Amino acid sequence: MINQLNKKMEQAYEAFLSYQQVSGKEKKEFLYAIAEEIEALGDELLQTASEESNLPVARFAGERGRTCGQLRAFGDLVAEGTWVEAVIDTAIPDRKPLPKPDMRKMLIPLGPILVFGASNFPLAYSTAGGDTASALASGCPVIVKGHPAHPRTSNLVSGAIQRAVARCHIHPFVFQHVDGTSFEIGKILTQHPLTAGVGFTGSLSGGMAIYHYAQQREVPIPVFSEMGSTNPVILLKDALQHSAPELAKSFAASITMGVGQFCTNPGIMLGIKSSVLNHFTSLLALELSMIPAYKMLHEVIHKNYTAGLDKVLYDKGVETVYHAHAEGSLTGSPVLARVSAETFLRNPDLRHEIFGPFSLIVVCENKNQLTDVWKILQGQLTTTIIGTDHDLELNKDLISIAKNIAGRIVFNGVPTGVEVSNATVHGGPYPASTDGRFTSVGMEAVKRWVRPLCYQDCPDFLLPDELKNNNPLGILRKVNGEYSRQSAS
Amino acid sequence: MINQLNKKMEQAYEAFLSYQQVSGKEKKEFLYAIAEEIEALGDELLQTASEESNLPVARFAGERGRTCGQLRAFGDLVAEGTWVEAVIDTAIPDRKPLPKPDMRKMLIPLGPILVFGASNFPLAYSTAGGDTASALASGCPVIVKGHPAHPRTSNLVSGAIQRAVARCHIHPFVFQHVDGTSFEIGKILTQHPLTAGVGFTGSLSGGMAIYHYAQQREVPIPVFSEMGSTNPVILLKDALQHSAPELAKSFAASITMGVGQFCTNPGIMLGIKSSVLNHFTSLLALELSMIPAYKMLHEVIHKNYTAGLDKVLYDKGVETVYHAHAEGSLTGSPVLARVSAETFLRNPDLRHEIFGPFSLIVVCENKNQLTDVWKILQGQLTTTIIGTDHDLELNKDLISIAKNIAGRIVFNGVPTGVEVSNATVHGGPYPASTDGRFTSVGMEAVKRWVRPLCYQDCPDFLLPDELKNNNPLGILRKVNGEYSRQSAS
Repeated sequence: MINQLNKKMEQAYEAFLSYQQVSGKEKKEFLYAIAEEIEALGDELLQTASEESNLPVARFAGERGRTCGQLRAFGDLVAEGTWVEAVIDTAIPDRKPLPKPDMRKMLIPLGPILVFGASNFPLAYSTAGGDTASALASGCPVIVKGHPAHPRTSNLVSGAIQRAVARCHIHPFVFQHVDGTSFEIGKILTQHPLTAGVGFTGSLSGGMAIYHYAQQREVPIPVFSEMGSTNPVILLKDALQHSAPELAKSFAASITMGVGQFCTNPGIMLGIKSSVLNHFTSLLALELSMIPAYKMLHEVIHKNYTAGLDKVLYDKGVETVYHAHAEGSLTGSPVLARVSAETFLRNPDLRHEIFGPFSLIVVCENKNQLTDVWKILQGQLTTTIIGTDHDLELNKDLISIAKNIAGRIVFNGVPTGVEVSNATVHGGPYPASTDGRFTSVGMEAVKRWVRPLCYQDCPDFLLPDELKNNNPLGILRKVNGEYSRQSAS
Repeated sequence: MINQLNKKMEQAYEAFLSYQQVSGKEKKEFLYAIAEEIEALGDELLQTASEESNLPVARFAGERGRTCGQLRAFGDLVAEGTWVEAVIDTAIPDRKPLPKPDMRKMLIPLGPILVFGASNFPLAYSTAGGDTASALASGCPVIVKGHPAHPRTSNLVSGAIQRAVARCHIHPFVFQHVDGTSFEIGKILTQHPLTAGVGFTGSLSGGMAIYHYAQQREVPIPVFSEMGSTNPVILLKDALQHSAPELAKSFAASITMGVGQFCTNPGIMLGIKSSVLNHFTSLLALELSMIPAYKMLHEVIHKNYTAGLDKVLYDKGVETVYHAHAEGSLTGSPVLARVSAETFLRNPDLRHEIFGPFSLIVVCENKNQLTDVWKILQGQLTTTIIGTDHDLELNKDLISIAKNIAGRIVFNGVPTGVEVSNATVHGGPYPASTDGRFTSVGMEAVKRWVRPLCYQDCPDFLLPDELKNNNPLGILRKVNGEYSRQSAS
């Protein structure tokens, strides 16, 4: 097995030497071709993903749209070209005491990237998901370790990518797929000297295992593990007073979306003790009771969910507000619990993510206690504030807490449903991710797989197009401190 | 000691909560005030730095200019404001199947940053050097562990910063200075839970020690260690033929600049066996012989230099071309050696940096061998290509090797002398640095200490100025995919 994996990494590096020269326009064609080949798989893909994940077929029509949409969006980004952050400072030969050299920099790809997909999004965060799409867009070859929970889906998508590779005459080892269930595969690939970076989406234990494998390397490489969070929601009084029924409905849907198996699931909700908070809690329980319980992704996730619930619900001081009756195997019952802030602050176990359709309402005595609870939560992908303008005006200081714990602050919405946009941040302080300086969703995700390279006094004919004087690509560049699409000379 | 250090980190975090709110314009005033206070130290600073480093006073007039220049340049950068990379994607409420939320992102500071300065630049890469200046510019408080080789210089500069803090009414713990020689101090500070990032400049062993301390943390943080390199120089034939005397003069100056104690010192030079290469080698030896030998920075560096030379010069197959006679204690004698590519490829010891006025000429049989030698060298801060346009036209393929090993490619110049500009990259693949995705010199150095934060559907009155609809700061933003200084609504 080791020999085979070593060979794959060597082939990936060989592909890198070729693929790093490929233009943005050609990469766009390739990424569009991948999207087309995935769409050409038709219903078979949706059906297979549904069978392997226990999630409905309809969900995968949407997820396929997201997957292909982000492939095309990355294609557009690199074809336009400004993403390389070209910066040019032209020479000043007569500067005193020393002449100023001509300096030009741009972003270049790192090398072969290893991707570990997530089980909860077999399309959008897996084989051809955001990590793969962003790495291929940046100019890096990709080796995907297929998720053992959806091997057939992964192989179908892998086949689609390989057909796109052939169609576009891209180096055949720009994309490779590795099957297998052994952790050893992930370890060997992470520790291979030619691996230049790792993208992972999944559990805290899985993400940190990969991170620790990488720490044993001689040469450090970037590891971006997105590991989820409890996504705390702050419920302010005026909003509860005005909109409890609507809020209960939308949060019930958010908590149970995908059987709660979203990394942005609202797992903790904070409010100040009041009759409106009680009212909202009752309405939320009622809404949850109207949503049927579905099967979870696979046995391990179901086992962890049940164990997580057991740990919390039988804790002294935790009150079960609603617990759906579970029928059939692997069913993830929606559960709502409530606890006082005092108990919550005392028991660190209550702060951990329980992956599934669960949320815990923490009842605080006053605003000070609410901020104490909020601050004690560790790094988050998201935090949400529910409040009318009046609430927000009175609680402006809450923003600074939100800023320091999360990658994304949601106002008057639900944290589930991560928009793929230029402004998306899907990442955040640990343990939401291993490096809060990057995002794994949205256009900025390419930044994980590149580094800046500076050319000093390079003759124009040797410069890459992005840095040539006459700006043949017409990209926006920072030239002597000013942003411009003009020629630099 | 532990209690005292813990207290300092707690104070730094307290300062962070205040300093992260300070505007770009106020940060500019603060950074300018630091520069003024450093200048106000007058000759005492230059004299002290000279006494503690064995380098001439005149050198510190230049280094002070660089230090104050970069403080002001970072001030200008953050006062202008575009550096936060504001991106706005406005809402599309009627999008199908789901409404598109309003998403806005910008860069925000990480938290308290720990800085370890370098002994070879007691001003520009130390207490108020590039790491400190970039972290303060980004909105992060700084704790400097003063370098034990220049404690008086470090304390003078620290005093200047503290006066600037008082003058500008900045939180008093935004800058703190820690004295001491024990490694334990660095370990405790690196591992403190409130430390949000580390900047280090120095040796490979020192940089990796800090990196490994950080790996033992529960919460991963970014560590940017800049650890130097051998900065290989490629000498092409036509250039040698035309300009051997000028090249010999400029490389002799580069090799001995600051007694060779520059992280961009040209430690390895590659050329193809020829009479012009021999001629250049003789001229370089002659030029070196006209440059007096000076004292090195301190005992440990001198000891390491001597030990490094012993390891290389007595190796079978290494020929000493020039070895200056050393008189007096701590003198760093300029040394030029020569080796065949065959020997070089066989002996990995020859690839390591020897910190001091030393360079090794590697004589290759042909271009293939030259590229073999070049590729085997690990990550570099810089690599240099010396060639006429004719040489470069014939050797275009060399660029792709240069790209994959270095952070900066220099054409027809010397690698020493790192320009502070928008396009500067001072970093590179390991072991040049621990993360080649960042630079420690130039305006982009701020990017090490920030992370993106996304606001979803945030009411305009709660948004930071950078993201408000009417763009009160007039910064360049990416709005719905287009770059603009206009209002976003």
